[in-house]
Amino acid sequence: MRKGLLFVVSGPSGAGKGTICKKLIDKMDIELSVSMTTRKPRPGEVDTKNYYFVSEEAFVETIQVEGFLEYAKVYGNYYGTPKEIVLKKLEEGKDVVLEIDIQGALKIRESYPKGVFIFILPPSMSELRKRITGRGSESEDDINLRLGETLKEVSYIDKYDYCVVNGDINEAVNRVAAIVKAEHSRVSEDIYDLIEKYKEEI
Amino acid sequence: MRKGLLFVVSGPSGAGKGTICKKLIDKMDIELSVSMTTRKPRPGEVDTKNYYFVSEEAFVETIQVEGFLEYAKVYGNYYGTPKEIVLKKLEEGKDVVLEIDIQGALKIRESYPKGVFIFILPPSMSELRKRITGRGSESEDDINLRLGETLKEVSYIDKYDYCVVNGDINEAVNRVAAIVKAEHSRVSEDIYDLIEKYKEEI
Repeated sequence: MRKGLLFVVSGPSGAGKGTICKKLIDKMDIELSVSMTTRKPRPGEVDTKNYYFVSEEAFVETIQVEGFLEYAKVYGNYYGTPKEIVLKKLEEGKDVVLEIDIQGALKIRESYPKGVFIFILPPSMSELRKRITGRGSESEDDINLRLGETLKEVSYIDKYDYCVVNGDINEAVNRVAAIVKAEHSRVSEDIYDLIEKYKEEI
Repeated sequence: MRKGLLFVVSGPSGAGKGTICKKLIDKMDIELSVSMTTRKPRPGEVDTKNYYFVSEEAFVETIQVEGFLEYAKVYGNYYGTPKEIVLKKLEEGKDVVLEIDIQGALKIRESYPKGVFIFILPPSMSELRKRITGRGSESEDDINLRLGETLKEVSYIDKYDYCVVNGDINEAVNRVAAIVKAEHSRVSEDIYDLIEKYKEEI
């Protein structure tokens, strides 16, 4: 049976990776990976849908049995990608898409190098500035700091397989969809099964 | 400026690579590479459209100046892919698709390794047998010989980047179209130009 593929959609904050993933799962037969966290659920958040909400004890146990493709501690809360759940879906032939920051993506590159790594870029720094400013939650200094950070992050792009510039959101989603389709046509071990079948037929 | 990409569509005879290329150029902004030959034009064939029809002297001169991405002599006639014409289109930012047999594709892999190599497979050997039999021009023995040959050719698939099974022709064309689109999102040198632009902007 054809195995599923893991698509890691990553990039600087403000590039639009979240929107791209949401539109992708509406458009294609692909599932979004759900993270595990020790953070308390916010109003409206549903366990197993938005996150797997677990205790710190359960999370640390999972770390100890190497049960994460990646994890990180942010502002005192743990967040991680549960390995077994993702691998099971892939085994069942389902594609999985995972939205994650650059540090997380680099860890997954180590733990699951067979993943397909897609970097989402803003069309320009001035557009990124506009998007961040539009959120209205950060000062001018904070924004400049963020943009400097983004520039550093972008230098990791050579660890990725693909890069999609998110100028027009629909065009960007179409590009990611094309990558998903194309990757299923890559020459891989699956092909050798087909060739064996040919040999038996002749 | 974004450079064009060369897509080499190859595979055993009867797999449908010709039909796929024709439908691809109808659907996408991509040009078909025209071969050069010393064979005489057949009725209806147009110079520079079906082939570049040249004298043997002109062809051999082109060989001597390494002017082909690949060439071969078949039944006394030369056939070749003119390097300069293809490279010029790529420089101008145009994508080029090239339909060729497996031996030719392997030569292009040497002369232009940046090409994207796509192997077209029939859905099964029995389907391939049906397609060849349908043409009605070959004996049972010839057909068995051909299928044995095909099996040998298929073993070169690991020299290719992609493999598309041509069961349903439209699905196969869509897959090749997705490959063309996805390959333009590959992380490549072009990306570094964009990053430089980001740096200037900040």
